Amino acid sequence: MRQSLAREFNNLIERSRDRQLRLAVTGLSRAGKTAFLTSLVHQLRHAGVEARLDLLPAAREGRLLGAQRVAQQDLGVPRFPYDQAIASLDQQPPHWPEPTRGISELRLHIRYRPENNGLFGSLGSDTATLTLDLFDYPGEWLLDLPLLEHDFFSWSQRQQATLSPQRRELAADWLATVERLDPAAPADEAELAEIAGRYADSLQAARNAGFSDLQPGRFLLPGDLDGAPVLQFFPLPGLEDADRQHLESLPDESIYRTLAKRFAYYQQHVVKPFYREHFRRFDRQIVLVDVLGALNAGPERFEDLSRALATLMRSFDYGKRSLLSRLFSPRIDRLAIAATKADHVTPEQHTHLVTLLEALLAEPIKDLRFADVPVKALSLASIRATQAHEVEHQGKRTPALRGVTLDGEETLVFPGEVPTRLPRPDFWARQGFAFTAFRPLSRETRGGGLPHIRMDAALDWLIGDKLQ
Amino acid sequence: MRQSLAREFNNLIERSRDRQLRLAVTGLSRAGKTAFLTSLVHQLRHAGVEARLDLLPAAREGRLLGAQRVAQQDLGVPRFPYDQAIASLDQQPPHWPEPTRGISELRLHIRYRPENNGLFGSLGSDTATLTLDLFDYPGEWLLDLPLLEHDFFSWSQRQQATLSPQRRELAADWLATVERLDPAAPADEAELAEIAGRYADSLQAARNAGFSDLQPGRFLLPGDLDGAPVLQFFPLPGLEDADRQHLESLPDESIYRTLAKRFAYYQQHVVKPFYREHFRRFDRQIVLVDVLGALNAGPERFEDLSRALATLMRSFDYGKRSLLSRLFSPRIDRLAIAATKADHVTPEQHTHLVTLLEALLAEPIKDLRFADVPVKALSLASIRATQAHEVEHQGKRTPALRGVTLDGEETLVFPGEVPTRLPRPDFWARQGFAFTAFRPLSRETRGGGLPHIRMDAALDWLIGDKLQ
Repeated sequence: MRQSLAREFNNLIERSRDRQLRLAVTGLSRAGKTAFLTSLVHQLRHAGVEARLDLLPAAREGRLLGAQRVAQQDLGVPRFPYDQAIASLDQQPPHWPEPTRGISELRLHIRYRPENNGLFGSLGSDTATLTLDLFDYPGEWLLDLPLLEHDFFSWSQRQQATLSPQRRELAADWLATVERLDPAAPADEAELAEIAGRYADSLQAARNAGFSDLQPGRFLLPGDLDGAPVLQFFPLPGLEDADRQHLESLPDESIYRTLAKRFAYYQQHVVKPFYREHFRRFDRQIVLVDVLGALNAGPERFEDLSRALATLMRSFDYGKRSLLSRLFSPRIDRLAIAATKADHVTPEQHTHLVTLLEALLAEPIKDLRFADVPVKALSLASIRATQAHEVEHQGKRTPALRGVTLDGEETLVFPGEVPTRLPRPDFWARQGFAFTAFRPLSRETRGGGLPHIRMDAALDWLIGDKLQ
Repeated sequence: MRQSLAREFNNLIERSRDRQLRLAVTGLSRAGKTAFLTSLVHQLRHAGVEARLDLLPAAREGRLLGAQRVAQQDLGVPRFPYDQAIASLDQQPPHWPEPTRGISELRLHIRYRPENNGLFGSLGSDTATLTLDLFDYPGEWLLDLPLLEHDFFSWSQRQQATLSPQRRELAADWLATVERLDPAAPADEAELAEIAGRYADSLQAARNAGFSDLQPGRFLLPGDLDGAPVLQFFPLPGLEDADRQHLESLPDESIYRTLAKRFAYYQQHVVKPFYREHFRRFDRQIVLVDVLGALNAGPERFEDLSRALATLMRSFDYGKRSLLSRLFSPRIDRLAIAATKADHVTPEQHTHLVTLLEALLAEPIKDLRFADVPVKALSLASIRATQAHEVEHQGKRTPALRGVTLDGEETLVFPGEVPTRLPRPDFWARQGFAFTAFRPLSRETRGGGLPHIRMDAALDWLIGDKLQ
């Protein structure tokens, strides 16, 4: 994974000449990362032809000439499966692309004509190339950042504090076993593996039930570490501050010390390498959030999403006292936060969606502005799946959406209002949300391009200044 | 994966006091690695109780007190799934354990009473502990060793030379595409990924058809590297020595240079790390060979197995001129080669099986003896699945086996003779082999122990001297 010095140097030169940009895309699972990246690549490849990118000046002015995929630098990172994603969309009936697992990467060469900037500017016929490295990684990995601030003892206490009643229920099987455990007893490898398996199952069940704030993130996507002791630990419930000294003086073979050792190994060999080898190299970042999905899921999940996002956003807080700044000196110089699937509500609700997103992220956005990281919130649909209409409904003109549901039914829906503030408990009691999920438009309906909502605005914020 | 210096030092001390031993088990897929390791652990755990280990002096003399699983050292390596394997065997009906993928590890503490060696020897009541680290890894990884002696050009030539007629047929789909490729053309990432996919499919088809000598080994078990460019290369057919200079002067973006770069990355980041981080630390090694399966599969596969084994065994050739010795200074001081599944032929054929194994490995064994690596060939059944009988058959007493086939049928078979020499072509034409596959004995039939054939002899050779 290590880059050679020569490559590093070359990158540095390219970047200082504004010719290379490393753009990362993240979001919790089902936030729409794969659709976003697929659309981004498609829009740039088809710029000036089928793609409509009026909010991106270089495209509007006809200076964006297109993009080509070229060989990526790190041969050990999976390539983002763009062709498979397009193939899914082109299927009959069309499918949403398969979600990616772990990190993936794609490099584009973007050809453009620089603006004619006065007497000494380049001539109109000159073209330039921007090398855009795209990275896609699970937002769940960022949820592990706080783990670095803990030791096993404080992490165990913290985890117990976050177990909500519903999550307790989903973890009942694990809790029943772990509560019988004596931390001072000698560790039995097989027993720990078994209990850790139950803990991982409880995280998986929580995720399936719509929860996001789950640690450790790698338990949900173990990959090659499946079955390794580093993924066989779990928090110990019921630890009192007074126990700390006693527990830490237990022998190496005790359950407590064995779990603590694995926790420390996870910090060093799983969490840190991602920040060291990937994260600190990103120049810009977009965080995708499925706000509508969380509204659908009800109050407990919505609060959980809010907490997970606050945690996730701490990876972008480069204030002086932040753990991350001290450890890895990251350098993201621009950040976008996007509510995805905007095509699932009618157009006049899009500003509501942005306002709600800003409310959801109010604290982190304040911190980011304070730390002087430019940040923009927007709503978008990477791949628009509906068509907006106004229809006569109960005597008045009402906005509506026409689309095909996941079951294949053509339907007309009135999705209603998105709240502009974090819903209060009585609001949830009075009224739930039920935004319909749609399948992508078929190839015939959509034509050669990929219809979208404000992908061009996102592109302008993320790369527009490099195409001047 | 790096061991800390302190741990390294500690290991060194333990080892110098003969208290720690790192034993590796390998073999091509389906050679019986999982059954062997499961049985090895079971026999040691049940020593002195259900396990019969008369050929292991420490056990015969009642000095072997048992073994306990303890925490392994490298937390990032999957643990060998012993409990799952035993659970499979205990099922009703019993199943062979699931094969492992990649490397796995297990640490045992073996308690024994040292021999009373004279006046100053230890007292009879003293006990000692041997720490036994067990490793299990796919033999296919060793097949990649020769790759380090090549560059992309010579590797391509070599691969073409090894394509037998049957393998050509299995690779027809890939060959049809790759033969149309112009090595000088600019590389199209998606096209290379597609062709590499066909190449990987052809390797998989060859393996399913019983072939073993397949490169690159990691294409068959990609793990977390799935989709990464490092696993997206393939040999170019039809390269002539005269082309070399021209091809190597092609631009970086050409197909030839792109494939060559990935090949080099595979050498550096996939093949070498295994030798550097694991292989060179092993003290002893057993190589398992499914000779009977290869006889069943016919002449082309049998020759292929012979070639694959010769390649694999080069990892143990520490002669002065060997590539491995120069690169990694490995240190295995004792080697066993075992023909597995000996319970699938009648007892009087076991010596034939060893003789055939020795014939199959004649050249590598010679090299090993010349390099002064003690090596022993034997036949064994890790978990005996049959019972040997003599029955009256066509008027004379004939050896036979009673067992339950994989389909669940109780059966009595006359497996016939194992040849003692590599079969000649006319032999294959005259007579094939058809050794029946059996399922493990049920828990009731076998009792608490795991019946075996010569596991104790293997144990004596591999660890017996450390239990004196």
